[in-house]
Amino acid sequence: MGRAATLERNAAGIETAIGILKQRFGDRLQTGGSVREQHGHTTTWIENQSPDAVIFATSTEEVAAIVATCAAHKVPVIPFGTGTSLEGHVNAPAGGVCIDLGQMNRILAVNEGDLDCIVQPGVTREQLNTHLRDKGLFFPIDPGANASLGGMAATRASGTNAVRYGTMKDNVLSLEAVMPDGRIIRTGHRAKKSSAGYDLTRLLIGAEGTLGVITQLTLRLHGIPEAITAARCSFPSVDAACQAVMATIQYGVPVARIELLDQLSVRAANAYSGLDLPETPLLLLEFHGSDAGAAEQAETFGDIADEFGGTGFAATATVEERNKLWQARHDMYWASLQLRPGARGISTDVCVPISRLAECVTAAQDKAAELGLLAPVVGHVGDGNFHTLLLIDIDNPDEVAKAEDFVGWLNDLAISMEGTCTGEHGIGQGKKPYLVRELGSAVDCMRAIKAALDPHDIMNPGKIV
Amino acid sequence: MGRAATLERNAAGIETAIGILKQRFGDRLQTGGSVREQHGHTTTWIENQSPDAVIFATSTEEVAAIVATCAAHKVPVIPFGTGTSLEGHVNAPAGGVCIDLGQMNRILAVNEGDLDCIVQPGVTREQLNTHLRDKGLFFPIDPGANASLGGMAATRASGTNAVRYGTMKDNVLSLEAVMPDGRIIRTGHRAKKSSAGYDLTRLLIGAEGTLGVITQLTLRLHGIPEAITAARCSFPSVDAACQAVMATIQYGVPVARIELLDQLSVRAANAYSGLDLPETPLLLLEFHGSDAGAAEQAETFGDIADEFGGTGFAATATVEERNKLWQARHDMYWASLQLRPGARGISTDVCVPISRLAECVTAAQDKAAELGLLAPVVGHVGDGNFHTLLLIDIDNPDEVAKAEDFVGWLNDLAISMEGTCTGEHGIGQGKKPYLVRELGSAVDCMRAIKAALDPHDIMNPGKIV
Repeated sequence: MGRAATLERNAAGIETAIGILKQRFGDRLQTGGSVREQHGHTTTWIENQSPDAVIFATSTEEVAAIVATCAAHKVPVIPFGTGTSLEGHVNAPAGGVCIDLGQMNRILAVNEGDLDCIVQPGVTREQLNTHLRDKGLFFPIDPGANASLGGMAATRASGTNAVRYGTMKDNVLSLEAVMPDGRIIRTGHRAKKSSAGYDLTRLLIGAEGTLGVITQLTLRLHGIPEAITAARCSFPSVDAACQAVMATIQYGVPVARIELLDQLSVRAANAYSGLDLPETPLLLLEFHGSDAGAAEQAETFGDIADEFGGTGFAATATVEERNKLWQARHDMYWASLQLRPGARGISTDVCVPISRLAECVTAAQDKAAELGLLAPVVGHVGDGNFHTLLLIDIDNPDEVAKAEDFVGWLNDLAISMEGTCTGEHGIGQGKKPYLVRELGSAVDCMRAIKAALDPHDIMNPGKIV
Repeated sequence: MGRAATLERNAAGIETAIGILKQRFGDRLQTGGSVREQHGHTTTWIENQSPDAVIFATSTEEVAAIVATCAAHKVPVIPFGTGTSLEGHVNAPAGGVCIDLGQMNRILAVNEGDLDCIVQPGVTREQLNTHLRDKGLFFPIDPGANASLGGMAATRASGTNAVRYGTMKDNVLSLEAVMPDGRIIRTGHRAKKSSAGYDLTRLLIGAEGTLGVITQLTLRLHGIPEAITAARCSFPSVDAACQAVMATIQYGVPVARIELLDQLSVRAANAYSGLDLPETPLLLLEFHGSDAGAAEQAETFGDIADEFGGTGFAATATVEERNKLWQARHDMYWASLQLRPGARGISTDVCVPISRLAECVTAAQDKAAELGLLAPVVGHVGDGNFHTLLLIDIDNPDEVAKAEDFVGWLNDLAISMEGTCTGEHGIGQGKKPYLVRELGSAVDCMRAIKAALDPHDIMNPGKIV
């Protein structure tokens, strides 16, 4: 533990600011212990650091007013979506005011002809896709959790569809944000591309709320493909599965999803989701296109899988079967925890050039075995990104120490392979030392930007830099 | 004219810095009038503002040394690729030292298995694609000019293929750059995605050299498609052509190129490139995919074109025919100038949501006619981006004034349509007032970032902010 350092508290400023804000927000400002705790970090092994107050905001103007008040009294502001982040992003190491954006959940416009929409930050990806379904459109980024779109932008989320559709950075056209001084800015409008000045859109995406609060998102949408075919294929080893992935990507198959489950993960999925998959490494795939196009992709993949010893390659016959398979994939976190009831799950998030993927996953499996850690692997392997979920007894200092060793070792391995310590989860509190190892003095430039835009370090302090 | 304001010169500092740099660089530092003039702005109507010296750098370390020396003496540094930018980006309004990166033109690595490569900034897109051809790979961004990849990143360039492959922001994995204090940073490595801190890659892309000098680029590559089919189709009006484009994009056809030439542009192309196209608005297209996939796309487009009165839809039969068509498209700037020999061409660059495209192009044509300006239109219309090329007698103040009115009017119209004044050319000196109209107080955030990273405003001063 101890992965969440405590920062100095401005107790007087916090008290004053909360007093002022209470007058405006009344019951929408809450200071009860359980509400505060729910708005600190509640996943993984990073300890909970609660804010002093939680305000349920309903408009950009309210967010601006909260930030301006906090700025005047140098009080931390922590934006909160659904709390599904994994690296302590919503913790309040110096206390302060959490802005819960969950009530800012309106879909403000869907421009079907332009394949874009404008949403408030509390809209979740499932809410948006349900709204879009009848229009034949969808938003592709799917990190698994039913996260808020504001939070997904803040952590530069991606997930299973990123191999084809990119990450949040590729699917946000522009943002509205409240900056650390309370000013409301727009980073762009609805043009599909722009060369108009510094890319503040991409600067805020992945800034984890440390540079401002995202209050509105203009998102790119995609037409629901004519054909969606899911498929699965078993492999004799993780190495063989990864080789098949590498060949598929290198061959240029525009696969929409290509997910790895190692043997342990398949066992967990079978038990948790009532499946009957062969207990060997598995790839789950999805092909999007015209009827002919999706069939052609599946056929090409089938040929590649053959070469690497793939067996049981089967396209799903029905939408129900497809949904069941992907639901099982999305439930992997919960399924894996059942491999060791009572254990805490610690997820790594390295991403490496795809030519190093097989080597990196295999090394991670060997290392976990060597340390005696139970560690199922799942991965968005088309992007070279995979998660080793360490299942540890958080009260056993020896296991915790081994898990910390493993995380550090794997992050360093990925960095040495020209990869990154985080493909999609972000830095938060947990990965700060690795960011410096990965990017060196570039982190000083990040610090300079942070200091320029947020001189009193009030926006989500203690994260990234 | 007068679109290039002069800034205060630090004459003593410049003299001192050049003296120091001359000692190190000898004949690679040049101060002759013609070399200096060639390294100022030489296109469009913005006046040439030459640097005091030009240094032909050969390594990142040399660039760092030049910047460090200039930083010590508060002397402007202007990075230079091929000089094909259009908004005064390479001008030296306060004098200073131009770093010509043309000799840093080595392709350092091609990682075929990872679909990426590492290049120096002076490598041009044609040089890279020639190098890649035998490997079955290509780099898709094609702004027309054979620009340097460093310059293309600096202006967030795009061009004809962007509708399918995105812009420079989507095709650069990471950068090495020399920052304004002479420090060398890396913004990332070779992972296909990353959530590791602020997106400095995207911050430098489109910063037009105002935040640092790009000294190395890690680029995403794509496999050369199995099938590339070009096609053309004539339309009774610009409106009909735009309607067909809108329907094609909305239908989700993954067209690789979809370019508009209005009637005047077709006339120019016929004359300049020896073509025999019907003199009505024309769409030029390219479809990438498998044999079956490209054919299916072409067929779908053919059906859509029919609906909007398209005629003469024909796929090119041979590579030669395809190359001839695209060469004609790339030569449009020169071809258009021949519509009025001796005239200067002033290109607008607005980009609007595609649902507003027909309306915006038609309004631009009407406005040009109303002002009596000869103004052929070409456009990357799949992205909602088009260029009106005003052909004016630069010595006729009345025409220049009308052109200025037109540019301002069109930029304001695009902004009012939730678009942008620049889809791909950038802000430079020419569009600074429009940036403020478009993004308001977000420009103050850009200024704060600029001041934080470059407190003495030495990096390409007078551009963007």
